[in-house]
Amino acid sequence: MKKNAIYAQSGGVTAVINASACGVIQTARNYPDRIGTVYAGHNGILGVLHEELIDTSLESDLNIARLKHTPGGAFGSCRYKLKDPEAHPEEYERLIQIFRAHDIGYFFYNGGGDSQDTTWKIARTAQKANYPLTCIGIPKTVDNDLPLTDTSPGFGSVAKYVATSIREASFDVASMAETSTRVFVMEVMGRHAGWITAACALAQENSHDAPHLLLFPEKPFIEKNFLRRVEATVEEEGYCVIAVSEGIRDQNGKFLSESGIHDAFGHAQLGGVAPVIAQLIQARLSLKVHWAVADYLQRSARHIASLTDVEQAYAVGKAAVEYALAGKNAVMPIITRLSNDPYRWEIVPALIQDMANIEKPLPEHFIANGGYGISEACRSYLLPLIQGESPVPMKQGIPDFVRMKKDLIGKKLAPYIL
Amino acid sequence: MKKNAIYAQSGGVTAVINASACGVIQTARNYPDRIGTVYAGHNGILGVLHEELIDTSLESDLNIARLKHTPGGAFGSCRYKLKDPEAHPEEYERLIQIFRAHDIGYFFYNGGGDSQDTTWKIARTAQKANYPLTCIGIPKTVDNDLPLTDTSPGFGSVAKYVATSIREASFDVASMAETSTRVFVMEVMGRHAGWITAACALAQENSHDAPHLLLFPEKPFIEKNFLRRVEATVEEEGYCVIAVSEGIRDQNGKFLSESGIHDAFGHAQLGGVAPVIAQLIQARLSLKVHWAVADYLQRSARHIASLTDVEQAYAVGKAAVEYALAGKNAVMPIITRLSNDPYRWEIVPALIQDMANIEKPLPEHFIANGGYGISEACRSYLLPLIQGESPVPMKQGIPDFVRMKKDLIGKKLAPYIL
Repeated sequence: MKKNAIYAQSGGVTAVINASACGVIQTARNYPDRIGTVYAGHNGILGVLHEELIDTSLESDLNIARLKHTPGGAFGSCRYKLKDPEAHPEEYERLIQIFRAHDIGYFFYNGGGDSQDTTWKIARTAQKANYPLTCIGIPKTVDNDLPLTDTSPGFGSVAKYVATSIREASFDVASMAETSTRVFVMEVMGRHAGWITAACALAQENSHDAPHLLLFPEKPFIEKNFLRRVEATVEEEGYCVIAVSEGIRDQNGKFLSESGIHDAFGHAQLGGVAPVIAQLIQARLSLKVHWAVADYLQRSARHIASLTDVEQAYAVGKAAVEYALAGKNAVMPIITRLSNDPYRWEIVPALIQDMANIEKPLPEHFIANGGYGISEACRSYLLPLIQGESPVPMKQGIPDFVRMKKDLIGKKLAPYIL
Repeated sequence: MKKNAIYAQSGGVTAVINASACGVIQTARNYPDRIGTVYAGHNGILGVLHEELIDTSLESDLNIARLKHTPGGAFGSCRYKLKDPEAHPEEYERLIQIFRAHDIGYFFYNGGGDSQDTTWKIARTAQKANYPLTCIGIPKTVDNDLPLTDTSPGFGSVAKYVATSIREASFDVASMAETSTRVFVMEVMGRHAGWITAACALAQENSHDAPHLLLFPEKPFIEKNFLRRVEATVEEEGYCVIAVSEGIRDQNGKFLSESGIHDAFGHAQLGGVAPVIAQLIQARLSLKVHWAVADYLQRSARHIASLTDVEQAYAVGKAAVEYALAGKNAVMPIITRLSNDPYRWEIVPALIQDMANIEKPLPEHFIANGGYGISEACRSYLLPLIQGESPVPMKQGIPDFVRMKKDLIGKKLAPYIL
């Protein structure tokens, strides 16, 4: 029996979330007898609630293929979290109405832990309402904090970007340290988990190499100890390169990024822990410091994406459709590691309720060097994830990305007020 | 007659200054009957003054070739500026002593306008002292503010990096703007000249594309006018992407990066104009803002270097040696544009004294869109400079760079106190 499908992107986008979209749409197009039209929620689940559905059948095969090398969320994403279905069933009821109106038999939700919690709730609601719906989650998050899966699509590419960037900048700093900048601080994402911070250490070829100090959100920031390490590193190596997670906190649990930088009006300054660390080092150690905040550059850097990550992102999209067609429900394709060296992996199904709303921090045994570095176990885990290049087609000297036409289908229902 | 040579890197390093070093050393190795050993100043001119000379003949041909894809300054660079030779002749006398002690007949100085002023002064000092020395400048600066030459090696690669990065981040921001970040601010280098800021506009494919607003150091920042433009852009496009030069100033000539952000101790915050702009927009327009500061990442990003830039950087190094062997003195190879489309260029000699200490700001007719964008003339000028890819060999998922052994030769002179 032929049914239509809805695909929606959720939460912070990545350099490879569109590769998952590509996997979903290309695979669905291979089964025209089973899957009718794949609609994409315009700006994620909000577009589904508002019946703003993009007809992906109007996008050419070529443009769907180009999704594989286009960063951001091609159909739009959002941070909207559905309300609790017990207290507020209306949003779930609305979704069922939408599904009914457009003959939807498959729902694919591409997002992190929060979003998979939603997928699970939607699956249960449909079941209770006796509406025949196959709900499949598709993992995604640069933070790499999803449980069960070996890694989260999106993370490997950020890891490759930060390792490459801090390595390049370190060559710069090292060459001028004698008369110029002695300390370089690079801030990376990962508010609750230090996976991206840890990945910076992949820039090291030997024990003297930068980055010399990593500041993990899993470890409270102890100023005196940290400054002593910076001083010692500058003494030994001539310079010091530091990678810092945006989410580090002091011993009282307070974010360092909120630790007292104010503008002329007395407002707390907007984000940025790198300038706080830089200021501290300059004030206390009188060393010249430079800092960088990569922010969105890191999670959108498709030009230096990891081929492994791109392939895994595509594979989970493809598997999502295959699972749906095989009759699986309320599952999510995850990545299982079969071996480390060579890295071999496969896609297997996991139950959504087993991963919803659980965060996976960097385990203690992955942290070494007095809390400022990574262990060999961590390196062995991380290294395969950044392997392989996935060059982007270039046009006029810059990456050539695709933009979807985003043609919306006609509405059948009354407007919905959130 | 066979003479040795000294090569020194000066000032801020770039992603391609080592390609110039490669051009110098490889070309010199082709003329063993004319050029003996090429010594490199350890950390630039300071190494020459201190008789810390790296024997590049001990570096393998393979490793010299690898310089072409290694960022930073492979022999070390410094920001040290020689004193005025009239008032303080001692530094110049020291250099002549060093040259005499090591049978130096050629001096190659790889740096920006300041450094070429030094090259010129060394050439005159040698002439006055009747010491036979051939002095050749080699252009370099990411700021692109050298006169006479069509462009400065180092700039094209930064231009490609910033255009690529802001394009990628813009795809990210656009996909989530409805419920998340509305405004994205990216800070770029170029304290006195807006060339790098202008290059961000190469990310645009059409008139609606990001970046929407550029803040040039050539234009005073007028808050009210700027905020109106941000508001209008968000209204029209749904989001607004801004590229800002680190060097923008208010109408009183005061750097915005010094405009009132203080830490808990009352110290002015270290650099960073992007957070100042972000704070302003959030406070006045109540829009969610993210910001990035690429800092050294932009000038060391060899992984996304412009092939045109790499080729020009190599060509000026090669030409420097050829000019020296042809008996030219006190000249610098510069790049002349023969045609725009296709971009054709050649290397010609220019007199050093014609370019020393002159800065080339972005010309007025290159600025458009009410001071917030670039003209078609500017685009035509910039576009060829970012063309072509120059992939870096990868090892374990990250760029494989070379490190010089940096073997210093034995000293023959007494230590020198600066």
